[in-house]
Amino acid sequence: MSDKIPYKIYLNEDEMPKSWLNLKAYMKEQHDPFLNPATGKPCTAEELEAVFCKECVKQELDSVDREIEIPRGVSDFYKMFRPSPLVRAYFLEKALGTPAQIYYKFEGNNTSGSHKLNSAAAQAYYAKEQGLKSITTETGAGQWGTALSMAAAFYGLDLSVYMVKISSEQKPYRKEVMRTYGAKVIPSPSDTTEAGRKILKEFPGTGGSLGCAIAEAVEAAVSTPDCRYVLGSVLDHVLLHQSVIGLESKTALDKYGVYPDIVIGCVGGGSNFGGLIAPYMAERLQNKNSVEFLGVEPASCPSMTRGKYAYDFCDSACITPLARMYTLGCGFMPSPNHAGGLRYHGMSPVISKLYHDGYIRVTSAEQSKVFDAAVTFARCEGILPAPESAHAIKAAVDEALKCRETGEKKVILFGLTGTGYFDLAAYKSYNDGTMTDVIPTDSDLQKGFKSLPKVPET
Amino acid sequence: MSDKIPYKIYLNEDEMPKSWLNLKAYMKEQHDPFLNPATGKPCTAEELEAVFCKECVKQELDSVDREIEIPRGVSDFYKMFRPSPLVRAYFLEKALGTPAQIYYKFEGNNTSGSHKLNSAAAQAYYAKEQGLKSITTETGAGQWGTALSMAAAFYGLDLSVYMVKISSEQKPYRKEVMRTYGAKVIPSPSDTTEAGRKILKEFPGTGGSLGCAIAEAVEAAVSTPDCRYVLGSVLDHVLLHQSVIGLESKTALDKYGVYPDIVIGCVGGGSNFGGLIAPYMAERLQNKNSVEFLGVEPASCPSMTRGKYAYDFCDSACITPLARMYTLGCGFMPSPNHAGGLRYHGMSPVISKLYHDGYIRVTSAEQSKVFDAAVTFARCEGILPAPESAHAIKAAVDEALKCRETGEKKVILFGLTGTGYFDLAAYKSYNDGTMTDVIPTDSDLQKGFKSLPKVPET
Repeated sequence: MSDKIPYKIYLNEDEMPKSWLNLKAYMKEQHDPFLNPATGKPCTAEELEAVFCKECVKQELDSVDREIEIPRGVSDFYKMFRPSPLVRAYFLEKALGTPAQIYYKFEGNNTSGSHKLNSAAAQAYYAKEQGLKSITTETGAGQWGTALSMAAAFYGLDLSVYMVKISSEQKPYRKEVMRTYGAKVIPSPSDTTEAGRKILKEFPGTGGSLGCAIAEAVEAAVSTPDCRYVLGSVLDHVLLHQSVIGLESKTALDKYGVYPDIVIGCVGGGSNFGGLIAPYMAERLQNKNSVEFLGVEPASCPSMTRGKYAYDFCDSACITPLARMYTLGCGFMPSPNHAGGLRYHGMSPVISKLYHDGYIRVTSAEQSKVFDAAVTFARCEGILPAPESAHAIKAAVDEALKCRETGEKKVILFGLTGTGYFDLAAYKSYNDGTMTDVIPTDSDLQKGFKSLPKVPET
Repeated sequence: MSDKIPYKIYLNEDEMPKSWLNLKAYMKEQHDPFLNPATGKPCTAEELEAVFCKECVKQELDSVDREIEIPRGVSDFYKMFRPSPLVRAYFLEKALGTPAQIYYKFEGNNTSGSHKLNSAAAQAYYAKEQGLKSITTETGAGQWGTALSMAAAFYGLDLSVYMVKISSEQKPYRKEVMRTYGAKVIPSPSDTTEAGRKILKEFPGTGGSLGCAIAEAVEAAVSTPDCRYVLGSVLDHVLLHQSVIGLESKTALDKYGVYPDIVIGCVGGGSNFGGLIAPYMAERLQNKNSVEFLGVEPASCPSMTRGKYAYDFCDSACITPLARMYTLGCGFMPSPNHAGGLRYHGMSPVISKLYHDGYIRVTSAEQSKVFDAAVTFARCEGILPAPESAHAIKAAVDEALKCRETGEKKVILFGLTGTGYFDLAAYKSYNDGTMTDVIPTDSDLQKGFKSLPKVPET
């Protein structure tokens, strides 16, 4: 480690981004529009505004403005947990014996423990500005629900979180963080909604699913005055908000005086990866660089490496608009032994389109290998990573080891999206040697594809 | 919030302290020496070196050098999690409607979740430099054991952590973090030591105690070749290492252009408070300021506000040297309903001496009030605090509210030592409304005082 080159860079507050970067405004072709599943026609802004905040819908449909100003009410909140550090992984490089330079952007230094707060802040702010009284959402593992609880508390909004019942039982402490921030946490399915009551009647004793929780949260939002539904990934406006990750990373790497050869992120719904790559992808789309963009997904939920590019529901209860994306089919469920997040059946339409058009490479990783990388990283770099984030670590380590073979001095940037403090049951199974890998068979995948909807003729 | 005044300050790495500040070198009178309980004579360096690392013993006995250089091997590790942010609590000030300025130094942004890593890093480094192969320690709630696990992994030392059995059962995830960093976690009492076997025979089925865990860790250290015991608070060299907290705080407050009127910290063993106040207390001892120093202890374990200034064992198994300190008697046990740490029967000899000489004010707080302050803080400032740290928040809030009454624009600095991510059972009892306060009666205290040792005549 040199005294002249910093170990990590925190930007000064006046260097923080003033605007989000709207990647869509750089894309030559846009992804296909959301369709109303009843009519087969593109969703109108009005239809979307019944569910989502007005300003978020505007951002969702904006493919023109390259920069969208971060409102003062959001940038003030961002100062509570941003800028996040951009770290040179000296100790990891040394342990690997690689000539590569490895950098990571760490988004876990906040109580929600992940990057999710970047969009939670923006969406809660817009809800408040619109004069709403409350918002609803769903959460599985709990990262998103925690982030939104913090934002709702900050802006003074009531929040109901429909938490997948089995998760709320397995992760009582995640639930407790949300309660501490004043959120109402409702194990789903619940008897508070029509959707919940229907599921409970059909499957008494079920542990619930994300699809059911989404259905309940949407129903609660649309049936409550001055209330809207808020989503933590996949959608274009969520990727927009997450562009602060990439923008800060670029400013910090500029200070280091380096430009990445490869940018790596884990992909579940795609929002952190979309945010991290934003400024470099914008330059790539203008033919200003030849950066390689590498998404890493779990082998147990391989929506891009083994999915189809097709119109599908965003939820597994088949109530949302249809999005054209890489998907395993909204009926696909990853094996229950899969730890951590990244278990979404589909993928952000923006990321899907960029992948389809050849701008992104995607690889998949088995979780036992992912945890190997996580533990190596924790011991070298001091941070216990979220299992999600460890997918990116695994790929970064692989790239760095390739450089050791070839002697290349590549500059590797990866996104360390969060901490694993609430994932210690998974670490326990790794430490105990009982963690297993399950990769879906082709026949498993075929079952999922059968759930793909028929898109109505327009 | 003004654009011109930052919300928080991260020092640049070249502004980080190069030396620790040895507060004892500024004190006109030193605290009384450690005594060998068998002989009643002051412990020699040789006696201490049988248990502790040589360099730590040297630092323990050094009351001359005002500055002690931070070795490069430690400062490199510090860069992984330091500098820590110094934050202006704008949102809290606004919520309280106070004219006071509130600043806090946040030490929780690392995987151990607290300031403990500052001394763990130094002690593990010195152990490695001395050529040791392994170290031992005890842990109760787990913050210290986690910090030392991280440091041991970084420097390549084997570590055995004797964890109070009931804690290891109640906090399995704390244990899992330590295991992930490669530490061996042994529920105490265990059958691996004479001390453990004795207790197990006498009290089969006991949940253990910190005193027993210390006894086991010390025995394991002295009976293993190339092994020493490491302690996370109380001792002078631990306070020395923690002075980085105060030194960084002062550099950052200088950048803000302010000097504190009052410096507030929670006190358990005294290491974080001793570290936070170090530079300001050094100036106070030279009559260069009139800063008020306020320690906050739990009403359920009031070692300073209701304890005696006397020689006592540092552990409750009565095997360590005797220290003169404020103590409730080494046999005192706080009520089991007391959440979080700060449950030590005694107090750092340095802090005890400064308190005895009138340089420090101490107050106590009931835990339900402490959690009120914790939740207010979490919702305003975004950080879920450790219950320990929330004692300082409670006092800072009280001081700020006094300023609202008087109109004084005091500058308040407090130490936010850690996060509450592993304390959510306590938050649950607060959220459920089942948290109670238990304040020891005078008769409870008398029982504790009866355990005070008779100091042998010398």
